[in-house]
Amino acid sequence: MKRLLVLSLSLIGLLLNSCKEEPAKDYRDPNLSIDERVEALLPLLSLEEKVAQMRIFHANIGVESDENGNLKLSEKVIEKLKLGIAGIKNPGEHMSPVEAAKFNNKLQMYIIENNRHGIPALFVTESYNGVDAEGSTKFGRPITSAASFNPELVYKVWDIVGREARLRGMHMCHSPEADIVRDPRFGRMSEAFGEDTYLTTQMVTNAIKGVQGDYDGLGNGTHIGAVAKHFAGYGQVLGGTNFAAIEISPRTLIDEIYPPFEAAVKEAKTLGIMASHGDLNGIASHGNPELLNGVLRNQWGFKGYVVSDANDIGRLYYFMKVAESPEAAALMGLSAGVDIDLYAEDAYSYLPALVKKNPEIEKLIDMSVKRVLRTKFILGLFDNPYVDENLAKTSIRSDASLKLAQESDLESIILLKNSNNILPIGKNRSKKIALIGPLLSETTQTDFEAVDGSNSYYADFGFKLTDENKSIPKLIEDNSAGVEKLVNIAKQSDIVILFLGGDEFTSKEAFFNGALGDRATIDPVGQQDELLKKVKALGKPVIVVLKHRRTLSINEIAENADALLDAWDLSELGDNSLAKIIFGEVSPSGKLPVTVPRSIGQLPFHYSMKEINHKKGYLFLEDGPLYPFGFGLSYGSFIYTNLELSNEEITPNSEITVSVDVSNTGKIKAKEVVQMYLKDEIGSVTRPDKELKSFKKIELNPGETKTITFTITPKMLEFTGLKMEKILEAGDYKVMVGTSSKEGLTKEFKLKM
Amino acid sequence: MKRLLVLSLSLIGLLLNSCKEEPAKDYRDPNLSIDERVEALLPLLSLEEKVAQMRIFHANIGVESDENGNLKLSEKVIEKLKLGIAGIKNPGEHMSPVEAAKFNNKLQMYIIENNRHGIPALFVTESYNGVDAEGSTKFGRPITSAASFNPELVYKVWDIVGREARLRGMHMCHSPEADIVRDPRFGRMSEAFGEDTYLTTQMVTNAIKGVQGDYDGLGNGTHIGAVAKHFAGYGQVLGGTNFAAIEISPRTLIDEIYPPFEAAVKEAKTLGIMASHGDLNGIASHGNPELLNGVLRNQWGFKGYVVSDANDIGRLYYFMKVAESPEAAALMGLSAGVDIDLYAEDAYSYLPALVKKNPEIEKLIDMSVKRVLRTKFILGLFDNPYVDENLAKTSIRSDASLKLAQESDLESIILLKNSNNILPIGKNRSKKIALIGPLLSETTQTDFEAVDGSNSYYADFGFKLTDENKSIPKLIEDNSAGVEKLVNIAKQSDIVILFLGGDEFTSKEAFFNGALGDRATIDPVGQQDELLKKVKALGKPVIVVLKHRRTLSINEIAENADALLDAWDLSELGDNSLAKIIFGEVSPSGKLPVTVPRSIGQLPFHYSMKEINHKKGYLFLEDGPLYPFGFGLSYGSFIYTNLELSNEEITPNSEITVSVDVSNTGKIKAKEVVQMYLKDEIGSVTRPDKELKSFKKIELNPGETKTITFTITPKMLEFTGLKMEKILEAGDYKVMVGTSSKEGLTKEFKLKM
Repeated sequence: MKRLLVLSLSLIGLLLNSCKEEPAKDYRDPNLSIDERVEALLPLLSLEEKVAQMRIFHANIGVESDENGNLKLSEKVIEKLKLGIAGIKNPGEHMSPVEAAKFNNKLQMYIIENNRHGIPALFVTESYNGVDAEGSTKFGRPITSAASFNPELVYKVWDIVGREARLRGMHMCHSPEADIVRDPRFGRMSEAFGEDTYLTTQMVTNAIKGVQGDYDGLGNGTHIGAVAKHFAGYGQVLGGTNFAAIEISPRTLIDEIYPPFEAAVKEAKTLGIMASHGDLNGIASHGNPELLNGVLRNQWGFKGYVVSDANDIGRLYYFMKVAESPEAAALMGLSAGVDIDLYAEDAYSYLPALVKKNPEIEKLIDMSVKRVLRTKFILGLFDNPYVDENLAKTSIRSDASLKLAQESDLESIILLKNSNNILPIGKNRSKKIALIGPLLSETTQTDFEAVDGSNSYYADFGFKLTDENKSIPKLIEDNSAGVEKLVNIAKQSDIVILFLGGDEFTSKEAFFNGALGDRATIDPVGQQDELLKKVKALGKPVIVVLKHRRTLSINEIAENADALLDAWDLSELGDNSLAKIIFGEVSPSGKLPVTVPRSIGQLPFHYSMKEINHKKGYLFLEDGPLYPFGFGLSYGSFIYTNLELSNEEITPNSEITVSVDVSNTGKIKAKEVVQMYLKDEIGSVTRPDKELKSFKKIELNPGETKTITFTITPKMLEFTGLKMEKILEAGDYKVMVGTSSKEGLTKEFKLKM
Repeated sequence: MKRLLVLSLSLIGLLLNSCKEEPAKDYRDPNLSIDERVEALLPLLSLEEKVAQMRIFHANIGVESDENGNLKLSEKVIEKLKLGIAGIKNPGEHMSPVEAAKFNNKLQMYIIENNRHGIPALFVTESYNGVDAEGSTKFGRPITSAASFNPELVYKVWDIVGREARLRGMHMCHSPEADIVRDPRFGRMSEAFGEDTYLTTQMVTNAIKGVQGDYDGLGNGTHIGAVAKHFAGYGQVLGGTNFAAIEISPRTLIDEIYPPFEAAVKEAKTLGIMASHGDLNGIASHGNPELLNGVLRNQWGFKGYVVSDANDIGRLYYFMKVAESPEAAALMGLSAGVDIDLYAEDAYSYLPALVKKNPEIEKLIDMSVKRVLRTKFILGLFDNPYVDENLAKTSIRSDASLKLAQESDLESIILLKNSNNILPIGKNRSKKIALIGPLLSETTQTDFEAVDGSNSYYADFGFKLTDENKSIPKLIEDNSAGVEKLVNIAKQSDIVILFLGGDEFTSKEAFFNGALGDRATIDPVGQQDELLKKVKALGKPVIVVLKHRRTLSINEIAENADALLDAWDLSELGDNSLAKIIFGEVSPSGKLPVTVPRSIGQLPFHYSMKEINHKKGYLFLEDGPLYPFGFGLSYGSFIYTNLELSNEEITPNSEITVSVDVSNTGKIKAKEVVQMYLKDEIGSVTRPDKELKSFKKIELNPGETKTITFTITPKMLEFTGLKMEKILEAGDYKVMVGTSSKEGLTKEFKLKM
């Protein structure tokens, strides 16, 4: 009786309440604004349904297709989906695009029909070098495309990535990485865009704009939402090991690590941000409200959702030891502003219990749920939850996409050495070429034949660097037999092209026990240097192609190779692209997105370090890098002249136009990346030795000269001053325009306040 | 006429003024307090005289003795001394103690008699392993004595250092180093006390108390003032290169880098502090008022003077580029709280001109001058400026001092490996011993013979690591002939003692161009590993003695040596001390003051790093250190049992007594360092994996058991929390008591608030 009374009273309250307001809005009404729809939906959800909108599970817990193509869901999944779900990771990843589209439509329909309010789910993938799913175009890895110094090309690539993902029924990707990677020991180096803040910012914003279809592609169903990661400082893990602590000065954090993220939010309008595995100066990023709410939301105005990295809310207890229990970890993550718990079964699952103890917590939950729902509305999932299954067949991995993948390759391959212009090799030749070395792929020979129109090749990989057990790869200790075999092949050839570097096992994310990917050395694995020296001793021209996912110590290679092409990790057409470069169809135009050190003992080593870091060199070691950031040769020959400034002074309200003439005095049409670096001569805090602030990729015919202009803006001169605020400081500055971070023309100018 | 009038008016003013106050005090009156004397003296000084009290010049600009022992001063020096001077660096350093005492007395008399107010000068030396001057006792370097884990011994050593310095007429030393050194690439590693904050704090405070004679020794003329350096973070230079930038989280700075300095000020009452060459998170330490005035003076109550490192005020302009000119650098240093400009001719020399532009500046100058004058009064220099020249003869490098140097050696030598108890070697033997290797000294054979009572030795260094050009040492590339020679000697011997490591040129301060000392590798220089392997292949017992000034990569040595003694850099009696250990007169009892990594690629690597730094290891590398911090074997055999806590709870107002039984089950009397580590299981910020909080060095006879007690205090559990304040946090903690940072008994306890 008592209970009935209470119910009646609340009913009356509800009625009175609704009388006072305008007629209830329906979240299903597409004429309402997104915010109105979110506000209308939220109150309809039970606490458990709200929390379900804060969790993503992986499809591998029981989201499958049976032999007839019908949904096959595990009991666990069925139980979860009754409450709805924020999202599912990688559904249909091992299916062809068409199968995936069909499957994801069925899965989405099941989800919508089986939760009370028909809330659709986000299907989430990763996509740093193409959609991480069967049948997608495989592009070069981010650090490879960074070497192109061509943000427009990155935009085009990620536009395709976004389209291919949406076509197969995906909605979000946990990409791109906005981390600054400066430690080649770190196994994930190749997932990001290199050591430089400005270059990374350009690439990340273009990747996000591309994958999101300039934001317009989200709601009209052609593209997917980006999740920029890992916020913040993940590239700076101590010792280069995954999950390690991060020690960084607050000023460096703001000036060098934050900018790609800030641009991802403000300029590229990323839908999501993923927090970092690591701690940041003692505070776990997943439990850091100053970072996620303070900097990201309050300072930068981020409106999207923050998702945890895999299991990292639970790890506030298990790994970071900053929470007393998994429940406390859940509360810490929620309070810090993490909206979605990725995977963990024992983190946000505790939220309902926590609300019972402290009802105030539900306000935080509501904020997070609104961010997730808002994302689903932005993506149009309430109105158009399904994809056109027919489009997937023709539009994924199309000829145009593959052509783009190759275009990106061709702009990303870096020519580090070319003694006596040994490259390009003429196609009309009687010479036999040996294609040898552990980084040879199965298609290298046919790729070369296709470009060359000849079949005068010997091809053999000789030996592998690691065994092929993908879970726990082992170093193959003795490659001697392989080395001898390759030396014998080289003997019979006129030109040797050696494929050296590192394989997929020697540089990768260390993601569970035994499956490591960080290294304590950057020396090439195995007997590669020995192979090179023995081949070199034959006296034949040696061209080295370097394939790798981390910066390697290539002193021996740089010394012994006649030509050195740094390919990083190219697209699925990579060897074909390499052949086009080697035979001169295209001049190489890639530039190093990182500094190549002479020794691991020089770390940390990036070009923008302060001058004082190089006041004293190391005993018995030549100073400076082996190859500087921004460096890359060409088959053309570029001369820089006539550096001019429109004004020798800049003010907070004016700009300087910089012009320079670049001429191709060579005999081959070629592209060049014209780079502008600025240096603050004197600052109230110690300043970088120089910083890349603009670049332009141009193409010049033989004999052609172009005048290239840049604009120096006051914004480029800003830095975090003594009071930890962004400031401009009057004084002397220097501009350098040139072909790398080490070589260029310079002029002085002044900032007057 | 006008001028006379002005003068008269000021005279009247002066008289009126003195009428209002009590009779003018005389700074020469020893019955006044030091502060009164300082206040009385300051107003008598002209601006130029004040600034002269803020400069130290080096004796090498013209402070010499002629052939008759008379003062020979350059014009430049004579000119400077007319105004007085804060101090002179290294006067008489190349003279015998008695000559130096006489010379310094003459010099001091000249100075007193040639400035208007008879202000004496500070004669300054360095003293990290004994007074840096001819005829002084040469002790082991600081990192060597850190290995003793015996602060009382460090106190005794530095007491002798202080006495020997004062006896030759010195007053201050630019020592000890309170830096935490964790990067073995850094050439100055051996000048500090290792990687650990607590161990360094113990050693630094004892060094200062020793050298200052518990402060009482200052005024009574038996000891000298200490200058703890380099404030702050100098050990953390990026890449391990001198002058480099320092990147460190504010929390780590407070919890791990500051404590030795804080204790130097508060507990040991150091008279001086030297600022660090480097910048600290973007702010040059010499221009950092928050550091030098805020932390040092306001927070810690430091009353002494801050001296620049050599030329570093000028370098705010020349190196750091944070000042627009040398004048601006001078103002910056002054404003930051640097009282004395060491050496620079173009920094504080500009202060008078700056005062003319802005008279307010003189207030800052007055504060600095007072600190310098106060130091001179504390040292009793106004009352007793001279030393007893006769004492220097008998009391410097006395037998007692040399005995102490050896005592320190014997407690510092670390036994890292002792397969089959090959050590100690019995004295009564028929076996021939080869004493070989590049680190052999000229006296090794006679030192061994003296201890052994035998002359059955072959001794030969075989080859040197570097040439002997002290300014720019060169690597000696090919040691093959030397290696062969030594292998042949080894063949004729029954036991081989190999002296390996690094010489004085391969690890030292990089202090001017070309004379480098930082390295990009920690591999032993030359063909030492090859020598070892060839000798090992002979099948004879191989004992390796490691002499070095930086942590080396000793994987090969650890694997191939039957016994390994880590000697770092011992006293002038070092080889004699080694013989005493090798022949078993004394059991080794040193413990590693640093972590020995398996690879340079593991850096940064110290035992107290957070657990998360080791969540993932490196591919193809065994986890963990080669030898852990605190590790060291003994000829005894120690068993730990019965770890007991007086209480399982601690509160902010209570303590826990920890007891453990340590038994020597071996057959030889031996010393052991019993170490107590604490770990915070869960913290609001990520916490160290463990931290050394106490240790006791004990001696046990064979079969003896002692109960050792420690006290856990709430202070030991403090750390810098989220709000950057020192806090105590309720929760679970763990105590480990054991023989190294890796091995011990553990118990849990709780902190209740």
